Amino acid sequence: MTGSSRRYELHPDRLFPADPASRSIARGLYERVRELPIVSPHGHVDPGMLAGDEPFRDPASLFVTPDHYVTRLLHAHGVDLAELGVGQGELDEKAARLAWRRLCEHWAEFRGTPIRYWLEVELAEIFGVNRRLDAATADATFDEIAAKLAGPAFRPRALYRRFGIDVLATTDDPCDDLSAHAALRDDPSWRGRVVPTFRPDAYLEPSAPAWRERIDVLGRVADVDTGTYDGYVAALEKRRRYFIDHGATATDHSHLDLGTEPLVAREAYRIYAAALTGTATQDECTAFRRHMLAQMARMSCDDGLAMALHPGIVRNHHGPTFERFGPDTGHDIPARLEVTRALRPLLERYGTHPGFHLVLFTVDESLYSREIAPLAGFYPSVYVGAPWWFLDTPDAIRRFRLAVTDSAGFGKTAGFVDDTRAFCSIPARHDLSRRVDAGVLAQYVAEHRLDEDEATEVIVQLTDRQPRRAFKLEEES
Amino acid sequence: MTGSSRRYELHPDRLFPADPASRSIARGLYERVRELPIVSPHGHVDPGMLAGDEPFRDPASLFVTPDHYVTRLLHAHGVDLAELGVGQGELDEKAARLAWRRLCEHWAEFRGTPIRYWLEVELAEIFGVNRRLDAATADATFDEIAAKLAGPAFRPRALYRRFGIDVLATTDDPCDDLSAHAALRDDPSWRGRVVPTFRPDAYLEPSAPAWRERIDVLGRVADVDTGTYDGYVAALEKRRRYFIDHGATATDHSHLDLGTEPLVAREAYRIYAAALTGTATQDECTAFRRHMLAQMARMSCDDGLAMALHPGIVRNHHGPTFERFGPDTGHDIPARLEVTRALRPLLERYGTHPGFHLVLFTVDESLYSREIAPLAGFYPSVYVGAPWWFLDTPDAIRRFRLAVTDSAGFGKTAGFVDDTRAFCSIPARHDLSRRVDAGVLAQYVAEHRLDEDEATEVIVQLTDRQPRRAFKLEEES
Amino acid sequence: MTGSSRRYELHPDRLFPADPASRSIARGLYERVRELPIVSPHGHVDPGMLAGDEPFRDPASLFVTPDHYVTRLLHAHGVDLAELGVGQGELDEKAARLAWRRLCEHWAEFRGTPIRYWLEVELAEIFGVNRRLDAATADATFDEIAAKLAGPAFRPRALYRRFGIDVLATTDDPCDDLSAHAALRDDPSWRGRVVPTFRPDAYLEPSAPAWRERIDVLGRVADVDTGTYDGYVAALEKRRRYFIDHGATATDHSHLDLGTEPLVAREAYRIYAAALTGTATQDECTAFRRHMLAQMARMSCDDGLAMALHPGIVRNHHGPTFERFGPDTGHDIPARLEVTRALRPLLERYGTHPGFHLVLFTVDESLYSREIAPLAGFYPSVYVGAPWWFLDTPDAIRRFRLAVTDSAGFGKTAGFVDDTRAFCSIPARHDLSRRVDAGVLAQYVAEHRLDEDEATEVIVQLTDRQPRRAFKLEEES
Repeated sequence: MTGSSRRYELHPDRLFPADPASRSIARGLYERVRELPIVSPHGHVDPGMLAGDEPFRDPASLFVTPDHYVTRLLHAHGVDLAELGVGQGELDEKAARLAWRRLCEHWAEFRGTPIRYWLEVELAEIFGVNRRLDAATADATFDEIAAKLAGPAFRPRALYRRFGIDVLATTDDPCDDLSAHAALRDDPSWRGRVVPTFRPDAYLEPSAPAWRERIDVLGRVADVDTGTYDGYVAALEKRRRYFIDHGATATDHSHLDLGTEPLVAREAYRIYAAALTGTATQDECTAFRRHMLAQMARMSCDDGLAMALHPGIVRNHHGPTFERFGPDTGHDIPARLEVTRALRPLLERYGTHPGFHLVLFTVDESLYSREIAPLAGFYPSVYVGAPWWFLDTPDAIRRFRLAVTDSAGFGKTAGFVDDTRAFCSIPARHDLSRRVDAGVLAQYVAEHRLDEDEATEVIVQLTDRQPRRAFKLEEES
Repeated sequence: MTGSSRRYELHPDRLFPADPASRSIARGLYERVRELPIVSPHGHVDPGMLAGDEPFRDPASLFVTPDHYVTRLLHAHGVDLAELGVGQGELDEKAARLAWRRLCEHWAEFRGTPIRYWLEVELAEIFGVNRRLDAATADATFDEIAAKLAGPAFRPRALYRRFGIDVLATTDDPCDDLSAHAALRDDPSWRGRVVPTFRPDAYLEPSAPAWRERIDVLGRVADVDTGTYDGYVAALEKRRRYFIDHGATATDHSHLDLGTEPLVAREAYRIYAAALTGTATQDECTAFRRHMLAQMARMSCDDGLAMALHPGIVRNHHGPTFERFGPDTGHDIPARLEVTRALRPLLERYGTHPGFHLVLFTVDESLYSREIAPLAGFYPSVYVGAPWWFLDTPDAIRRFRLAVTDSAGFGKTAGFVDDTRAFCSIPARHDLSRRVDAGVLAQYVAEHRLDEDEATEVIVQLTDRQPRRAFKLEEES
Repeated sequence: MTGSSRRYELHPDRLFPADPASRSIARGLYERVRELPIVSPHGHVDPGMLAGDEPFRDPASLFVTPDHYVTRLLHAHGVDLAELGVGQGELDEKAARLAWRRLCEHWAEFRGTPIRYWLEVELAEIFGVNRRLDAATADATFDEIAAKLAGPAFRPRALYRRFGIDVLATTDDPCDDLSAHAALRDDPSWRGRVVPTFRPDAYLEPSAPAWRERIDVLGRVADVDTGTYDGYVAALEKRRRYFIDHGATATDHSHLDLGTEPLVAREAYRIYAAALTGTATQDECTAFRRHMLAQMARMSCDDGLAMALHPGIVRNHHGPTFERFGPDTGHDIPARLEVTRALRPLLERYGTHPGFHLVLFTVDESLYSREIAPLAGFYPSVYVGAPWWFLDTPDAIRRFRLAVTDSAGFGKTAGFVDDTRAFCSIPARHDLSRRVDAGVLAQYVAEHRLDEDEATEVIVQLTDRQPRRAFKLEEES
């Protein structure tokens, strides 16, 4: 192992405000929540990974290839996604070493980004690697991490325990049999809690690729004839119940806009029938999807699943990359979003329904103070979703708190979501959020806007109670 | 009186920056304006309250029921507006105690909000109540405040004097006879200044509820036949003169958008006639309202009334609540707004007219640096309105100053507006604004962007000169 | 010379954070780049000024009349542009003194603005005038500056050397013969580097004033028949090559929107032919311009010119002022902009082309975290342009860094551009940017998000490497 590269220590005060008085308060607040279990109500971890508990293959498969945060910035600096192993299935050692090397070579380009922050914390805290990555030591760090990955302490279940995860929600296709969730639940040696989330996007939008085929599968899996609109709705309701039976507490939805205008029954029937025969226009498909989003709220009022909305993303922006490497390869780009008018039809119908929870995320920061916080400050159902995707970063989380607290307080926010495919980044991401919240609350205390005893209660509330409450993840009976 | 609940002191340095050097500068700047009289150029206090000078009824009527800032956040936490006395007229003691209790029970939910900040300051500074509200002491604090309200020192006029209000503008219907304003003006024992503001929204938008009936009343009150467009315009002009005769210096307008495209005369005649017979389309009604907003600017050039625009709010977002409780019940939600193009027709015609003042408010923060400050940085008529409604808070005011000063300086901003129905919150709101401005200016001084003697002049200017200047509230001769 | 007005010293710590620990770090970072040469990849200096090297005429011609930042804020405070010499060609001494006096009289209105900051630095550092401007000393400072301007040390070339400018890009009409650039290049006594920038806006938009005449001139200058679309394209390509031969490394484009949808060839031919005969509709002209913007990207892929986009400005907002004083007179106002969808056609075609550089500016701050940084964080071609025009100020630059670094890091930003017509403001503007970047990076270091050795590398990178890289201004061979 060469000793040429720069070593670092994770500073205990990292991310706290620079002002000494505020920093001291932040330290105390953070200390209160540092060791609290992780509540992860939204993410993209594969439940089969925990059910199977196989060792992770290599450092690249763990840190580079599947993480589009990492690959997109390397691509932005001219690295071909193929060199990072994207879209190639399991990598052999040579390919894995190459992908890892590309990351190490471009380490300086990650300066100042949360990606670098997370990776540094993961490497230091989980793997004891606390040397800056660089080209000269790429193979050495690869070997060092790979050696650890082979040991039992680095298998998924061991890490789950070590990370202190209390509950982890996955994101799942409505037709998924949830066998991995069931296997975990039925395994007496497993003490964790992994719950599925009902994610029906591709079934609600008739113009989505392979919608017709999905509808057939839905019919088969639900054992309901989806040849009619009524059957389609019944099948969705049945699959929601199946998810609930497997521990689900929420649905998740990500469409380009938040339209929720319902159709009259006759129109819904007509468009559904046209969609089945492939003759519905794009406008009709969009109108149908908006109708179905309102229907999802109606179903949530009936069956109690919380409803999370992650809208406003133009998916697969670069066609050629999508064709070559598939989806989730770093070019999903946010677009401007409108909430106040778009959600009105849904909120007029279901916004004050007892027990209905609507968690509203955005990657358009201008919405925080203008639309989302005011809505959450009136509608009992509406929770402000955490800063997400491009915004789950120190500065964006600060801006978020300072933008929404005025109108929505702390009690109508939904806690942190890691939203990650990168399993090892979960503790680093939650810790970042706790540190930044501690810093924001320290500012409130230092400016005499909140007493310290109240701020202490608030940081526990933000870390633990709010995500459980918004996503209905209260302790299992 | 129980002593179980937590007592607090209002910290003299509250809202100042945490950094000691900046804080020290902020203290000095604030001290310069702490005692300056209050100039309140826009708000919703009932002038009859001051004319009649009756004691306030009870703590709920004073602090809870009429204040949609308070009721909306309680509603967001599941409290029925009926329990808060909304829409029920005068409350009996039982109902008033219940409303107050609901506030006390949910006090923790107001943490970090300006609503809590204002109420704490009001309770401590006006009523000497400096214990945190909670369920256990709800009746005791109710009684304590109620006892004080019965005394002469807590009547509206006594409070007006104690608050140090120099001038207070109300918001009034064009057909209002302004008798309360006249009564105050003619009362030799009254030393204050309460001026009306001409708010014609409902008369300019033919699709507004009861527009036709209002137009008839307008004709009667103005003694002009409003059966023709020319008569309608003449009636509005006459009522503006009536307002001016009663001390008005400004008009106020709040439509969803800022369109100002004028109609050719023939079109204005035609649509007006159609509106009278109820046959104008929604598009025609909107076009007519935009035309009339430009007409209001033209009238301001003629009669000298400043023109304030508070656009971009979707009113009564939740239909069922509106039907049950009426307007102003906490679900007016901001929407995205466009200014540059919308105001162009108006500004091309009147933007450089000598003496014309256009005060431009927004609840869409993205407009500050992009559209409003650049407009105010060129057009002599345009003043940047203060952060308003969801934005009259410590963090939003800071963001406002740091967003508009670059392009518009301090001298094209319009000072603070409290915009409140909550009479007792007026001094707390103005004090908050002065503290935050002191903090922002302290940052400029600490970063050597402004000398301290200039910052001292600026804070006086922001507190006193700018609102008087923008709203033409110069000392009466 | 009166001594009545207030003297000031430029504080060595100006613009650094107030917190002592952060300030100390900022000082060190700034010191590293304080004396680095200026790389100015985008601006509006007249190259003839440097070629001719005539003395500046007077203080008003240097600081007031041509600088729409200055004149617009004076106009906003009621000063007639005519009194500032706008649109009047060369001013006689009386007119120049009046313009200067108006600035001095209104000096207090510039408090807190970057305009005042730049002017103070320029007056103190270049002219040794370190007294606040005011009416009483207006003539004295005019004389003091005028006397210096007469001397050889204040001629343009001497100032260019004194300012430490390494390379200065101008903005030029495609039909310009670039004789000033050639004269400089061929002058053995000239050691600077002044490169032209190809700015074809008026040639791409058939509805722009005098488009038809321009196309004829283009044909003559390029010696290509522009009577056909193919000829028009060839003429543009030929002029780009002419610019490259004269040192150009970039093109620059400023349209209202960023549409880039290409036309099929037949449509392009048809609309071009219609435009030549004046029969193209506005929609066709817009579609053609969007097509041509994509064509410009295609040409950049072919000839290697970097492509800079400065969109989203409504030009000449106030018609009467435009008619009286012409363009660039302070009422170009930003408008909301959309990037993600508008640029998609261009980026799908050319976004990953090797060597293609697209520098994306905005005056709509909401785009930074939502659209521009995510695009730059994936597409190798996309660079985030510096905060520009209304945003090249201490607070906006801070907001910019904190909004884009999360998604794009430092290495996909394009460095600072001064974008100025005010030659003497160049060093003050670049110094401001270096100071603010030092402050932001100091915050990263103080919060333990970046080590100090890395921050030191980053500030050099932001100051020198990034603008050279994005605009292809690498050292000449």
